[in-house]
Amino acid sequence: MAADPRFHAVAGPLPLWRLAEVAEVEVPEGAGDRLFTSVATLGAAGPEDVSFLDARRWLDSLRETRAGAVVLAAENARAVPEGCIALVSPTPVLAFARIAALLHPPATASGKRHPTAVVGEGATIGEGCEIGAYAVIEDGAVIGPRCIIGPHAHIGRNCVFGADCRIFSHVTVTHCLAGDRVTLNPGCRIGSEGFGFATTPRGGHVTVPQLGRVILGDGVEVGANACIDRGSGNDTVIGPGTRLDNLVMLGHNVRTGQGCIIVAQAGISGSTTLEDYVVVAAQAGMVGHLTIGAKARIGAQAGVMADVPAGMDVVGSPALPVRDAMRGFNVLRKLGQSKAAATAEKKTGD
Amino acid sequence: MAADPRFHAVAGPLPLWRLAEVAEVEVPEGAGDRLFTSVATLGAAGPEDVSFLDARRWLDSLRETRAGAVVLAAENARAVPEGCIALVSPTPVLAFARIAALLHPPATASGKRHPTAVVGEGATIGEGCEIGAYAVIEDGAVIGPRCIIGPHAHIGRNCVFGADCRIFSHVTVTHCLAGDRVTLNPGCRIGSEGFGFATTPRGGHVTVPQLGRVILGDGVEVGANACIDRGSGNDTVIGPGTRLDNLVMLGHNVRTGQGCIIVAQAGISGSTTLEDYVVVAAQAGMVGHLTIGAKARIGAQAGVMADVPAGMDVVGSPALPVRDAMRGFNVLRKLGQSKAAATAEKKTGD
Amino acid sequence: MAADPRFHAVAGPLPLWRLAEVAEVEVPEGAGDRLFTSVATLGAAGPEDVSFLDARRWLDSLRETRAGAVVLAAENARAVPEGCIALVSPTPVLAFARIAALLHPPATASGKRHPTAVVGEGATIGEGCEIGAYAVIEDGAVIGPRCIIGPHAHIGRNCVFGADCRIFSHVTVTHCLAGDRVTLNPGCRIGSEGFGFATTPRGGHVTVPQLGRVILGDGVEVGANACIDRGSGNDTVIGPGTRLDNLVMLGHNVRTGQGCIIVAQAGISGSTTLEDYVVVAAQAGMVGHLTIGAKARIGAQAGVMADVPAGMDVVGSPALPVRDAMRGFNVLRKLGQSKAAATAEKKTGD
Repeated sequence: MAADPRFHAVAGPLPLWRLAEVAEVEVPEGAGDRLFTSVATLGAAGPEDVSFLDARRWLDSLRETRAGAVVLAAENARAVPEGCIALVSPTPVLAFARIAALLHPPATASGKRHPTAVVGEGATIGEGCEIGAYAVIEDGAVIGPRCIIGPHAHIGRNCVFGADCRIFSHVTVTHCLAGDRVTLNPGCRIGSEGFGFATTPRGGHVTVPQLGRVILGDGVEVGANACIDRGSGNDTVIGPGTRLDNLVMLGHNVRTGQGCIIVAQAGISGSTTLEDYVVVAAQAGMVGHLTIGAKARIGAQAGVMADVPAGMDVVGSPALPVRDAMRGFNVLRKLGQSKAAATAEKKTGD
Repeated sequence: MAADPRFHAVAGPLPLWRLAEVAEVEVPEGAGDRLFTSVATLGAAGPEDVSFLDARRWLDSLRETRAGAVVLAAENARAVPEGCIALVSPTPVLAFARIAALLHPPATASGKRHPTAVVGEGATIGEGCEIGAYAVIEDGAVIGPRCIIGPHAHIGRNCVFGADCRIFSHVTVTHCLAGDRVTLNPGCRIGSEGFGFATTPRGGHVTVPQLGRVILGDGVEVGANACIDRGSGNDTVIGPGTRLDNLVMLGHNVRTGQGCIIVAQAGISGSTTLEDYVVVAAQAGMVGHLTIGAKARIGAQAGVMADVPAGMDVVGSPALPVRDAMRGFNVLRKLGQSKAAATAEKKTGD
Repeated sequence: MAADPRFHAVAGPLPLWRLAEVAEVEVPEGAGDRLFTSVATLGAAGPEDVSFLDARRWLDSLRETRAGAVVLAAENARAVPEGCIALVSPTPVLAFARIAALLHPPATASGKRHPTAVVGEGATIGEGCEIGAYAVIEDGAVIGPRCIIGPHAHIGRNCVFGADCRIFSHVTVTHCLAGDRVTLNPGCRIGSEGFGFATTPRGGHVTVPQLGRVILGDGVEVGANACIDRGSGNDTVIGPGTRLDNLVMLGHNVRTGQGCIIVAQAGISGSTTLEDYVVVAAQAGMVGHLTIGAKARIGAQAGVMADVPAGMDVVGSPALPVRDAMRGFNVLRKLGQSKAAATAEKKTGD
């Protein structure tokens, strides 16, 4: 099944040679003029669709695909069925992404400003921006050229965005300076007051003024309903190209390097630093004031309570290096399955 | 204490025979004309309230209740105090729900469209719909009859909703086809761009266009601030009658069968399938590309890393069948409480 | 670096004697007229900034700070470098918070109502309130004096707020009675329908009407995108001074005492009660119908399945008293690191 044209732009049909050009793949002789309209998974694709293979476990699906062409690694090209064109790439998903974006170009700013949009005094809107119904851009904000501001988005006073940003509906942004090509998915909250307070001797909590900002580097993406609090004194800083999934929580003064990946529902406590290209899997958590070294990988649901050296993989809660954690877990599992455990269980009545 | 009439409609007082009719319970002779105004818990109910007992651990509360009537299972009817009417049902909570809905009918669409609502070109609004202030319904959307669209709700281009849906305030819906009686609680995000990207050899992340949709079956309910990403190529599909609690996260291409229950803050990674009537407890997580068999139950905070057979209960992270996990946990707890552990602790200084 | 004046009000420069007055600290003779403009961390502060030391692990930063003055405990005062004024307090963070709020006063209500704000019939707006663009306040709502209502905030029918509340953008509030000085951060959802349903013999789920309210005590703060469901029959009650961080989830009928702290992404299931001053760390979860005693502390990612006595600290999932849990964890870690485990691993192929 191809992409539903009610929801996705359709640029095709396009000849294979154009797709191959953006994907940097070779086209078999004589196939360059064959036309393609869309992309689809191996199981859903038809003769006018391009598909892809990203892992060997889908080889069976590849053998049965009806796709007109498949992007894949050289080692898997022999499994392509007859009539299907193998497009060989050292980076099949990347090549596929480029083909998909050519056939179904992402939306660009229409240049239209809805009459209900409120733009405050001294706010600057760049050329070609699209501003949705009921968007509110407060005094002094600066929006770069060709940005898309969705319906009901709220951009706070004096916030700055670079060029080609996408700020979807219901987003709140305050106390923020953002670069180019930043994407803020629906309902994310950027710049809210961090969770900082002092407790009086009598037990009351007094807010510590949160006087920092949020700095978003070029190409940062933030998922739906995710939250990034502003710094408490220093800034919260998200490095260029870092991507946050939905419902992620970053506390005040968190800093990430470039190209980090933080998957859904993960949370990072205040003042923790991620160096470049750290990967944090879903629902993982980190206490505050840690340093996670470059290219470290934090497992799903891990609970990180200490610094992690560069390049290390940790899992578990509290988190341990992956080998130690898995061994401990295996021992535990065997204990749980053993007769001895069952016996002990009966004896103690637990 | 009965329901606060500032916030909940009041249809009563109503005679017991009418309540008994919807609840499919028998009324003791002569009690049919007794009037009831509201419902309440055992501890809070008075003589004009109907209450219920759903578990034997509340039997003490039952014995002391001042409720005029209590819905309960036959086995507990003897514990009803004098002057309180026992309404015996094989499904007491269900019977109570029907009585409560009769005494306090849920809101229905007023048929009024607030003058500030923006309805795009070619959008179709069914008969009797209620549309709140500043709602935005984009071009080509189709809204079935008697829907309630809350203030600030945003329905994207060409989205389709069936009859009798409730879309509360601040909801964002894009790329979505929904059935009848769908409920979207405040701030949920349906159809956002999934977390799909390819990484270049130099470490940059390039978005893979997310070209699918979200399909919501009849009677689906989605909690406040929950997120359902659209499919990446195939669709994300939520089966009829499935209910998601607040802050739940479903990744692209997730599929659920009918009647699944996914409790608050649980997360399901991309392309995982839940068969019918699966229950996922709060804060549980699942990696991608799994199949969870029908009626399986996933424990709170479980971390599921492999397929789960139909009907199996799993707990723990990584998740194990419940008996194995609890045995292992008991062994671990004993190790932790043992003198040996305390001694080892002292010796190693850990 | 001082606070960015684009985002934070600047009241200074102010003489040290005024800062000392609010902070209840002594000023060294002759230093009272020295002027200060802002506050900053030890590493970022300059001669016109006040900084603070809240833990001995930052003593090295203290020795190298360029701050003009530092608030700290008496025991650390000797480490203050030459030229820097030591402001000695028994509660340094609290004293610092008061200085910061004097130099950078938090926003107060402007008294302006944006012309696009919708205020329903019979709604009452107190003196001096600020109401943002596209805010929607429904019929019969009562807003106390000097409240700030952000853009797009939605206050439901008959809701009541006391004085000096801050309701930020995109908040949804329904079925709620709130006290004075309540803060609702962007996108939080107060009063949504709880997750209550009965399941029919055929597997369908029928909503149990959720007929309670949410009661927010004086000084309650709720984080961005957090959710508090209304009671199902009784009320959901948040005690005075309790603070919830971002993305927290509280189910129907949850009750907290005063001064509780619930950190980001934690979740509390229906009908659980927290007594006064309970601390729940990030990503922790609790099953329903529990009682957590006063001043108990629940560790990050803990999974609490039983009542917790007053004053007890628990960690782990399932949660145990902290000493037992840490011992068990240490045993497990050693098992994981041991040669025996490595050998077992090889033999069984796990």
